Amino acid sequence: MSATHALAPAWQVGQWFNCRQPLKLERMRGRIVVLHAFQMLCPGCVSHGVPLAERVHRQLAGDDLVVVGLHTVFEHHAAMTPVALEAFLHEYQITHPVGVDAHAPGVAIPLTMASYGLRGTPSMVVIDHLGRIRMHEFGKVDELLLGSMLGKLQAEAAAGRENHSA
Amino acid sequence: MSATHALAPAWQVGQWFNCRQPLKLERMRGRIVVLHAFQMLCPGCVSHGVPLAERVHRQLAGDDLVVVGLHTVFEHHAAMTPVALEAFLHEYQITHPVGVDAHAPGVAIPLTMASYGLRGTPSMVVIDHLGRIRMHEFGKVDELLLGSMLGKLQAEAAAGRENHSA
Amino acid sequence: MSATHALAPAWQVGQWFNCRQPLKLERMRGRIVVLHAFQMLCPGCVSHGVPLAERVHRQLAGDDLVVVGLHTVFEHHAAMTPVALEAFLHEYQITHPVGVDAHAPGVAIPLTMASYGLRGTPSMVVIDHLGRIRMHEFGKVDELLLGSMLGKLQAEAAAGRENHSA
Amino acid sequence: MSATHALAPAWQVGQWFNCRQPLKLERMRGRIVVLHAFQMLCPGCVSHGVPLAERVHRQLAGDDLVVVGLHTVFEHHAAMTPVALEAFLHEYQITHPVGVDAHAPGVAIPLTMASYGLRGTPSMVVIDHLGRIRMHEFGKVDELLLGSMLGKLQAEAAAGRENHSA
Repeated sequence: MSATHALAPAWQVGQWFNCRQPLKLERMRGRIVVLHAFQMLCPGCVSHGVPLAERVHRQLAGDDLVVVGLHTVFEHHAAMTPVALEAFLHEYQITHPVGVDAHAPGVAIPLTMASYGLRGTPSMVVIDHLGRIRMHEFGKVDELLLGSMLGKLQAEAAAGRENHSA
Repeated sequence: MSATHALAPAWQVGQWFNCRQPLKLERMRGRIVVLHAFQMLCPGCVSHGVPLAERVHRQLAGDDLVVVGLHTVFEHHAAMTPVALEAFLHEYQITHPVGVDAHAPGVAIPLTMASYGLRGTPSMVVIDHLGRIRMHEFGKVDELLLGSMLGKLQAEAAAGRENHSA
Repeated sequence: MSATHALAPAWQVGQWFNCRQPLKLERMRGRIVVLHAFQMLCPGCVSHGVPLAERVHRQLAGDDLVVVGLHTVFEHHAAMTPVALEAFLHEYQITHPVGVDAHAPGVAIPLTMASYGLRGTPSMVVIDHLGRIRMHEFGKVDELLLGSMLGKLQAEAAAGRENHSA
Repeated sequence: MSATHALAPAWQVGQWFNCRQPLKLERMRGRIVVLHAFQMLCPGCVSHGVPLAERVHRQLAGDDLVVVGLHTVFEHHAAMTPVALEAFLHEYQITHPVGVDAHAPGVAIPLTMASYGLRGTPSMVVIDHLGRIRMHEFGKVDELLLGSMLGKLQAEAAAGRENHSA
């Protein structure tokens, strides 16, 4: 809750799946955002990261919490195209919104991945209702700790709304 | 948070493991209590219930949260004795406190199990910082939902402490 | 061992990975062949079929037994290209030989898949040392039963070699 | 198949479960015997050893193969009594025959465990149709390798029967 929490950078996304219009981080203020970065051919993403994000979406998403996937392709670019991603999302029955992280010409690491300083995939970033980064984790995330952190942020956001309206 | 949450009944325990002195629910006021009822020969307890309780203990327990096991033997009484339970706790490296639910003579269902109205094992009961039952679940518990509920209760307890001290 | 076991049809493969030259079924006579058909974006293949085939390769393959993967793409053709398959095999550390099942123009089901009458992916076909189909299974395969069948076929092939050389 | 395979020692068992009369190894000649030693409070036995033995029993047991459990209690003797074992077998739905390894007065290691030189639990011993020890493994057993070995021994036993009858 300290003033030292960095503000989450805007997303630079070329294409969205599972949502009607492009999502903007700045329009998420007031909600907790669980952002998970993955690659469709990364084994740890397929076995842990993506299913966990989908479970958070199905169990905890609502007016105060949203889950957003980010396809941060930094290798095998010819294999992990948007058309391949679309087939992947269909086959794995992923229903939460997923954006394709944009690339600068000739740069392997995509733009949003670079601006968040992600080390690889899977990565999970939790952004609070004021747009601040509260968790930033590379690799397998513990469900109990994640759930507990999200519950606290939800309570914090609810208290913030009450104070605001008072 | 409604006034309708029932107060958790006191525990009737004959013997404790993993703690220096008997635990009393009434001395837990101010802390969240995760109470899990199990039997050492119940397969669902061994594969899910007990390991989950131990994980909550190792990941989330502290000044504001405590995990307590309750050995609620209601079948195979000759097999699941306190000496057998002690060997079980040792072999499975259980470090959180565990009490043996007491029996009235000739009654299969033990006393605390009956007073809480538990349907079987494993069961999990979450008691808030005011001693009220906030969750009551039989069978496999979802880790994400449990974590989220505990995070909210921890935030609630912290807010209560702040209000109290103000 | 009956005369009614159908002979396994030849493979029609456009491209091979993990082997120096194209594999031909007719050159496999004398060896047991474990043929597993998969698609790289089929969840059951990724979680069960492909890892099982790789385990059979690492544990049981040798002079008398060979494991061959067959990428039988019958949906999402634009996503599951050979270049995508190559990235998949690299990321999942698959070391056994894998062929890309060939297509007739405009036909979704590839040629070898059709000639073997496979119902979908993952599928496993076990071919004995005389080129006969001895097992044909769609979906998850039991490891114990598969191991037992392969052990029997290996013993049968060894007995055949002894009789032949006598 | 070498003459160097040791003959399996006789079993010294005080009590049997899941069978109508005591089993004797010497009456098993002609059949493959999968003997698995376990303790009901050994975590590796409960999660891997015992379920694997039960799967072998349900999938592969028959006229030529039998699965036998051996409760080799060498610690926590007061906890792992026959009455406790009976409850365990009931709760875990174990249907294969299980014998209680006998003790010499005042000796922690039971008699059959000592005569087989087992290092601990779980242990698996595979005995061929001539009563010879062909596999002897402590810890987690690979299902594929176990299945393959049993398939080979079954083929060997069948060939032995044919030669005998000729």
